[in-house]
Amino acid sequence: MTSKLILLRHGESEWNAKNLFTGWVDVNLNDKGRAEAERGGQLLQSNDLLPDVVHTSLLKRAINTANIALVTADRGWIETKRSWRLNERHYGALQGLDKSATREKYGDEQFMIWRRSYDTPPPALEPDAEYSQFNDPRYASLPPELRPQTECLADVVVRMLPYYYDEIVPDLATGKTVLVAAHGNSIRALVKHLDGISDADIAGLNIPTGIPLLYELDDAYRPITPGGQYLDPDAAAEAIQAVANQGKK
Amino acid sequence: MTSKLILLRHGESEWNAKNLFTGWVDVNLNDKGRAEAERGGQLLQSNDLLPDVVHTSLLKRAINTANIALVTADRGWIETKRSWRLNERHYGALQGLDKSATREKYGDEQFMIWRRSYDTPPPALEPDAEYSQFNDPRYASLPPELRPQTECLADVVVRMLPYYYDEIVPDLATGKTVLVAAHGNSIRALVKHLDGISDADIAGLNIPTGIPLLYELDDAYRPITPGGQYLDPDAAAEAIQAVANQGKK
Repeated sequence: MTSKLILLRHGESEWNAKNLFTGWVDVNLNDKGRAEAERGGQLLQSNDLLPDVVHTSLLKRAINTANIALVTADRGWIETKRSWRLNERHYGALQGLDKSATREKYGDEQFMIWRRSYDTPPPALEPDAEYSQFNDPRYASLPPELRPQTECLADVVVRMLPYYYDEIVPDLATGKTVLVAAHGNSIRALVKHLDGISDADIAGLNIPTGIPLLYELDDAYRPITPGGQYLDPDAAAEAIQAVANQGKK
Repeated sequence: MTSKLILLRHGESEWNAKNLFTGWVDVNLNDKGRAEAERGGQLLQSNDLLPDVVHTSLLKRAINTANIALVTADRGWIETKRSWRLNERHYGALQGLDKSATREKYGDEQFMIWRRSYDTPPPALEPDAEYSQFNDPRYASLPPELRPQTECLADVVVRMLPYYYDEIVPDLATGKTVLVAAHGNSIRALVKHLDGISDADIAGLNIPTGIPLLYELDDAYRPITPGGQYLDPDAAAEAIQAVANQGKK
């Protein structure tokens, strides 16, 4: 038996458009992001890929992307599960800073280490800082040691995988088509796992926004087509290039 | 210990505005309905009534009302459960018909029996009729005998209460603030139970759209204030009058 896992990165948010580091800051979609989510739902419907269950992060840009895409595909009624483990990477003290200004201030090398090194997190964000979510009520049931103050991609892999194994794989095992609506880095962490990408090579992987990425998985939950299939391959290729250019002047 | 149950009827839908019987037909909110949902979310937030879990029907006008209200109140991330048992009353063969035309064709008495009698359902809708949802995929896991072809309010009470007892009360029992986003008649059925309203008196009860109705419940899950409290009592009184006038020329 094969199973279907669809990954969807949220559409453009108010801070994506402003070129700010966002991380765990709970910024909403902008109009373009809402339109991307609607287009994502149309792609699900036109490809007859109708999810039976959706998993989202606790952040409203992913939640709203799922809401809009699913209602558009006439599947707003499916089972819904959410977890902080699908949240975007916590960007530490960079949250709320302008990406271009940060690049200028710290230089290209440090900037790229923070953005793309696998295991070097940015400086920690103090719990009482302006853009900290340490005391947000949605994380009240997490012991303090689980609430990040900064994360590298390796940290995201470690905290995301238990959710994949405990909540997503059981849904796949019962034959459900599963939609995961999440973020650039939580999806990169999952794709790294699915495709067995090395710590070095994952730096070069970009996930476009709003374009569903389908993985058909075999009995061992390994991709039948490595890298999966974007439901709009041309738009995906174009968008991947644009993400790679982020932070450049 | 007391617990908090908040009932929210969806905002205006495309068919409410056209004065058509809707029932189980999956019509979306219109712009006014979306604005009502946003206002509902603002009322939750300004009254510091922040749900920990939301229960919705399987119909997108209730799902979207919950989505919009909760994201507005910054609670889009809470646990989400859905059930057909919270759906609107199935309006049988009246689904898709104009309310005023139906009143003219069948007369005031028959019209009011279909709309407000407790135990007389409209004629059944054939499974293959235009506005039947008998074969909709969202009901695929229900045996045919559970999929209604018409319902009176008594039928709604019978199919709604098991969900209230099995899914909503356990959430209340663990101290959660519970939001139920549903429909005129599934909410009337629940209010009938909570307030112990007689089969005769329930005909006179109207639920306004988009205004959260708070029930504080005691240890036996009985209302501390009979009838609950609307978060905007003036707007609720005005809207209740408008609902009572529906179907009049």
